[in-house]
Amino acid sequence: MSGRKIVIALGGNAILSGDASAKAQRAAVEATANQLVKLVAKGDRLIISHGNGPQVGNLYLQQEAAASLKNPAMPLDTCVAMTQGSIGYWLENALLKALKANQLEKEVAVIMSQVLVDSADPAFQTPTKPIGPFLTQAEAKVEMAHSDTQFIEDAGRGWRKVVPSPKPISIREHRVINALVEQDIITVAVGGGGIPVIADGLVGVEAVVDKDFASEKLAELVDADLLVILTGVQNVYLNYGQDNQVKLEQVTIQELEQHIQGNQFAKGSMLPKIEAAIEYVKAKPKRKAIITSLENIANLVNGETGTVIVA
Amino acid sequence: MSGRKIVIALGGNAILSGDASAKAQRAAVEATANQLVKLVAKGDRLIISHGNGPQVGNLYLQQEAAASLKNPAMPLDTCVAMTQGSIGYWLENALLKALKANQLEKEVAVIMSQVLVDSADPAFQTPTKPIGPFLTQAEAKVEMAHSDTQFIEDAGRGWRKVVPSPKPISIREHRVINALVEQDIITVAVGGGGIPVIADGLVGVEAVVDKDFASEKLAELVDADLLVILTGVQNVYLNYGQDNQVKLEQVTIQELEQHIQGNQFAKGSMLPKIEAAIEYVKAKPKRKAIITSLENIANLVNGETGTVIVA
Repeated sequence: MSGRKIVIALGGNAILSGDASAKAQRAAVEATANQLVKLVAKGDRLIISHGNGPQVGNLYLQQEAAASLKNPAMPLDTCVAMTQGSIGYWLENALLKALKANQLEKEVAVIMSQVLVDSADPAFQTPTKPIGPFLTQAEAKVEMAHSDTQFIEDAGRGWRKVVPSPKPISIREHRVINALVEQDIITVAVGGGGIPVIADGLVGVEAVVDKDFASEKLAELVDADLLVILTGVQNVYLNYGQDNQVKLEQVTIQELEQHIQGNQFAKGSMLPKIEAAIEYVKAKPKRKAIITSLENIANLVNGETGTVIVA
Repeated sequence: MSGRKIVIALGGNAILSGDASAKAQRAAVEATANQLVKLVAKGDRLIISHGNGPQVGNLYLQQEAAASLKNPAMPLDTCVAMTQGSIGYWLENALLKALKANQLEKEVAVIMSQVLVDSADPAFQTPTKPIGPFLTQAEAKVEMAHSDTQFIEDAGRGWRKVVPSPKPISIREHRVINALVEQDIITVAVGGGGIPVIADGLVGVEAVVDKDFASEKLAELVDADLLVILTGVQNVYLNYGQDNQVKLEQVTIQELEQHIQGNQFAKGSMLPKIEAAIEYVKAKPKRKAIITSLENIANLVNGETGTVIVA
């Protein structure tokens, strides 16, 4: 089969920025789909992953606010599954419309995805990701006395539950996902970084897995030709936002590791994307990873664009 | 490939009866999975569909109760997608555990599914399915004045929004679903009857499609050997619950149509299952449909059981 096998990771913030209505989110997803089909038209075979940060945060808040004995809030793993459902539906629906508009006859599949994590991952000892409503210190202390849940004071705004962010060790459905893409079916997978389950026993846990790391792991498992991580900027920069900023076009993992030492990349923002790209190219030295913007993706049709990470 | 290709429709009430917590629903799903793997062990290839009535009702209530300008409630099509995500995850996770316990190496895939409906379906003129919170008559009138939404007085308990229940004309993902089952991958699909979208243009609508009709349509499209509709009783009965009740074992569609004329089957309960079974056998006269209970499903391993509907 011709065409590159590409794993493309979309940011959750690209879908939900200001307006959280379904209508506004779907409009953003439709704009994304119109860009992605340009690659499909060229013959590339896509596996599309996406973040869910704002969406799962909003859902979890609604669930907690409206919870009752008769209608209890769902735990975080189930909430992640729900956002894989909603965002996956929006993406598939938008892709099908964009394919039709471009007279492309392709099927699209959204695969519910479980990401395997290790119960011994040190992240479980130090939860870092705040989720859910803001509580007073007193309320948080009551909650902590009743459960293993940890709370932290969040930037002066109140106390929030924190959950761990363990590293992915595998994607349970990678063989199914590969079977689909090998049949030239556009596949949406590992939404929100996947539903975290402990590898030994497949027990769902209240945790979140970084979607860039999960996408990287999937790209390894399906032996993708290319891992593309989309972000808000067309390229990675050194000294970003300063007068002496330098655009990176092609960069080796050794160079990037030096820049990480030099604290060039923002934690929780560009840094995990860089780390995921490095991990992929280390695992697959003949492959490349690209970090660029959604707006620039059409240029991928002609080869490489954005910041290209090589061994 | 050996083994029957079977579409099995599970009731949403089989997953959520009393306790709506994720823990209780997952326990019910695990019991179901333990039954279903008995068929897998025998070599049958399963496509599993499920209802979502109680789950989408609860989610919609939570969404409406907690909605704000910043965190608005999602429309019904997106809520259906969310329950495909949550129930699909629970089912896949439970099936994988049950497969492992039985030393069966199989993959499981949950496919987000859109059900195509006709905008000219008469159901859109007369919405019948009540959903969401109970309002006062005054509140309902305000809502009706502001939108096309219809409300009805629901059995003395208040006014509720009603949505149409159109007939399915196709399942958008049927080729993907068939490709998976043909590779011997256990596939969960058309959850909650599918996410209803207008066939012309794939526009999501606030509607619910009966899961038995959607499962029947899918069984036709993938050319299943057997359609199994699970319910609370082992067999269909005439004069059900009366002294002179008669158990149906093998029954023709002609006989069933006479019993429908005689008002033998409860609307919204056994009737749609009977109608779906008839529709399947009419479309595929060499095939059979079975209506039975989950508890009885292990007997399907040995051939036919429950009430068997034939041409």
